[in-house]
Amino acid sequence: MKTVKSREAVLEEVFDAVSRAVTPLPQEADAEKEFALKQISRLESVLGEDGTRIYFIGSAARDTGLAGDRDIDLFVAYPTRFERDYIVERTKRAIAAVLPGKWEMHYAEHPYFQAVIEGFKVEIIPCFHAVPNSPIKSAVDRSPLHMDYLQKRLSVGQKRDVRVLKLLLKRAGVYGAEASIGGFSGLLCEYLVLNYRSLYGLILASASWRPPVVVDIEAIYPNASPLEVSCRFSGAPLVVVDAIDATRNAAAAVSSYSLAVFSSLSSAILVSKNPAAFFEPHPFVQLLPSKAKLLLKKRGTSVELLQVPIPANLVEDVYHPQVRKAAESLASALQRAGFRLVGWNYRVVDGKALLLFESFDGMLPKLRVVQGPPVWFGAQVEKFVSAHARGVVRGPFIVGERVAVELLQDNVSLAEELSRLCSSEEISFGANLGPAFRRVSAADAFSGAGLELLSIYLSKKSFWFSSK
Amino acid sequence: MKTVKSREAVLEEVFDAVSRAVTPLPQEADAEKEFALKQISRLESVLGEDGTRIYFIGSAARDTGLAGDRDIDLFVAYPTRFERDYIVERTKRAIAAVLPGKWEMHYAEHPYFQAVIEGFKVEIIPCFHAVPNSPIKSAVDRSPLHMDYLQKRLSVGQKRDVRVLKLLLKRAGVYGAEASIGGFSGLLCEYLVLNYRSLYGLILASASWRPPVVVDIEAIYPNASPLEVSCRFSGAPLVVVDAIDATRNAAAAVSSYSLAVFSSLSSAILVSKNPAAFFEPHPFVQLLPSKAKLLLKKRGTSVELLQVPIPANLVEDVYHPQVRKAAESLASALQRAGFRLVGWNYRVVDGKALLLFESFDGMLPKLRVVQGPPVWFGAQVEKFVSAHARGVVRGPFIVGERVAVELLQDNVSLAEELSRLCSSEEISFGANLGPAFRRVSAADAFSGAGLELLSIYLSKKSFWFSSK
Repeated sequence: MKTVKSREAVLEEVFDAVSRAVTPLPQEADAEKEFALKQISRLESVLGEDGTRIYFIGSAARDTGLAGDRDIDLFVAYPTRFERDYIVERTKRAIAAVLPGKWEMHYAEHPYFQAVIEGFKVEIIPCFHAVPNSPIKSAVDRSPLHMDYLQKRLSVGQKRDVRVLKLLLKRAGVYGAEASIGGFSGLLCEYLVLNYRSLYGLILASASWRPPVVVDIEAIYPNASPLEVSCRFSGAPLVVVDAIDATRNAAAAVSSYSLAVFSSLSSAILVSKNPAAFFEPHPFVQLLPSKAKLLLKKRGTSVELLQVPIPANLVEDVYHPQVRKAAESLASALQRAGFRLVGWNYRVVDGKALLLFESFDGMLPKLRVVQGPPVWFGAQVEKFVSAHARGVVRGPFIVGERVAVELLQDNVSLAEELSRLCSSEEISFGANLGPAFRRVSAADAFSGAGLELLSIYLSKKSFWFSSK
Repeated sequence: MKTVKSREAVLEEVFDAVSRAVTPLPQEADAEKEFALKQISRLESVLGEDGTRIYFIGSAARDTGLAGDRDIDLFVAYPTRFERDYIVERTKRAIAAVLPGKWEMHYAEHPYFQAVIEGFKVEIIPCFHAVPNSPIKSAVDRSPLHMDYLQKRLSVGQKRDVRVLKLLLKRAGVYGAEASIGGFSGLLCEYLVLNYRSLYGLILASASWRPPVVVDIEAIYPNASPLEVSCRFSGAPLVVVDAIDATRNAAAAVSSYSLAVFSSLSSAILVSKNPAAFFEPHPFVQLLPSKAKLLLKKRGTSVELLQVPIPANLVEDVYHPQVRKAAESLASALQRAGFRLVGWNYRVVDGKALLLFESFDGMLPKLRVVQGPPVWFGAQVEKFVSAHARGVVRGPFIVGERVAVELLQDNVSLAEELSRLCSSEEISFGANLGPAFRRVSAADAFSGAGLELLSIYLSKKSFWFSSK
């Protein structure tokens, strides 16, 4: 007799297999903790006075990290009576005294120290003692409270679910709270699994989410509608009320795109015939140059590639946001100029960044509609109208509440406009990339890294829409 | 010795000259009132019982109408204990008994009767007695209250200012509350002049308006900010709290475009060297066919004209909104199809309506991005994805919070798309115009009415931006 397994049982089996692959081995986890405790005891030998306490915090400490992550976060919490400058200086001196290594000082909202020691990426963050739902001196002060809250509540099974969830989100490109991703942070993953009891519970719920979605673990806003709670948090599409700070949205970084991806992904995995595929990488298929050319011809659009060398000493955390920012700025500038973009993408390989832009229009129209200021700003309107006293082919007239004129412009191609932008000061190219962007010739676009980026771009697809 | 006249004195002189031209002659005004009173006394002979009262109302009654307007509005106000059907029927029988004429019954929110008698357009509107700031049974019940309020307050000078204001707004195309204009009603003109004491006061104020603008004559919302008051009235850019009904915005019809036009116009007339020009008609200059062709060639855009015959028995009030609606629907359909419109216009002459559309693109791009439903609607997303299982060149993927695919489409020209739309059922052409729209040949576009419309379109300009 054949037994039909429930969907939950099918998924649990997949989660289990995934978990075996992503969970650090016991000896790996033990070594990590042992290493962390050793650093702590050294620091305590010089810092353990005046009520200062050192915490080992983060996914490594809570067993919610993925195998291969070698991040150790140590928080040195000082009494609030100290000044910020003082605790930074004191932490610095303590590190110098007892933790030999190549330490660098970084600045987030708060300064912190970073070094790679015995293969671990160690971060030591000075902060102040904090109490739940009381004012804090700095965002990092919350971390020990989060650690305390989650460590007390997450079961072993839920910790496994957090690890599996992280891989699921990574594969769909929505893991990480950094601006370039706008996705789900590790802490958020833990809150979500805790709230919905399990990954399966979370997936079941998120498949029928409609924003604004409010997750209020501690029932801090019991009588407010989701819309009301979302309004309190600047209209965020997903609000996860921070259990240790009722005024903070632990999901503030999640864009409506990331939320849509996760909800759509959840719907799909619930009916997929091959749920394991959701955890596999989705490598792109490289197109033949002739195939790529044919596809572009069929699309009837214009595609241009730019490239810029990445200085060898830069780490990904530094150059990646800069490359993304440059691509975004160029895309906006092209749209402002009048090109209708189909899309854009970028990729960093072999010490250089490649940027791709696809436009419906190869050339700008001859006619250009220039929107001026709203009529309410009389002086600006006057300036606009006299600045366009010559060369106007139609207007000035009012469109909506703004003054506008129509001008003629030279025929400008997408390639010309990109070349111009590369040597203009309109674009913020990021501190380390500078004005070194160059157009990629057609020949180079259809080989090597150019062809790879084209292949990725032309086969863009949310994989879960077809993996039933 | 030369005396420098103040700006106010200069404008007052212009207003006075304009007023002499637009104010009905004394004998004209007297004849109008005499005629109205005669109709009233006849109606009263059969209706003056049960507390029924007949009012002569509107601009003719208040001396705020323009010369040549021959509208007489008579309101028959019944006690509220009657039913609506009953008062309509009773009014109908009274008219039939004592006012011979070719009466037609019309329906606004409330039915009314219309006939042309001795050259006057007479409207008789049954309504119910109403009391200020109390619930009313129908919008028309307010009219006697407005009459009472304004008649008691408007001075002779202010009535002159109202007439001048109406012409000023007419010339700028923003007089009238009908949907096709979205401008200032006659009643609104009276409220505005009353509130700002004079036309000059209104112009001075409106030149520095920034929406939301709130005019609260009776100080009904003394402590609310303009933004708060605007929120109460659905975010209207101009709120003029109705003095006899605190819940009504007498400026609800005013679009932000009309508000912008009036504010901009006011700024301009305050510094204009020739303020009298603001009250003159601005006839278009007909272009030579060769000049029009050259201009279009320079613009590098595509222009198409459509025409439709107007049935001979239709009055402007009926066909005008239909022509406008058809033009709007076609413009939206072209934009949905992917054409980037520069603009559109229409004109009715010689028993036919001509519609003009100008597009940046002569042809649609081959690539078409189809936006599907938001991912939150799982069933719809599934339907969308399977409907596009074939023919997709890229996707499906998520854009924002929607699923999207990219398809290839045939090359379609603006002319072809317009021809298709003319015989499709996508467009609401209005009850009386039907599917009789036809493309105008290139030859016809550059002669007669076609050339006129082209000339008007190509010389579009808000005249006051250059009449210093």
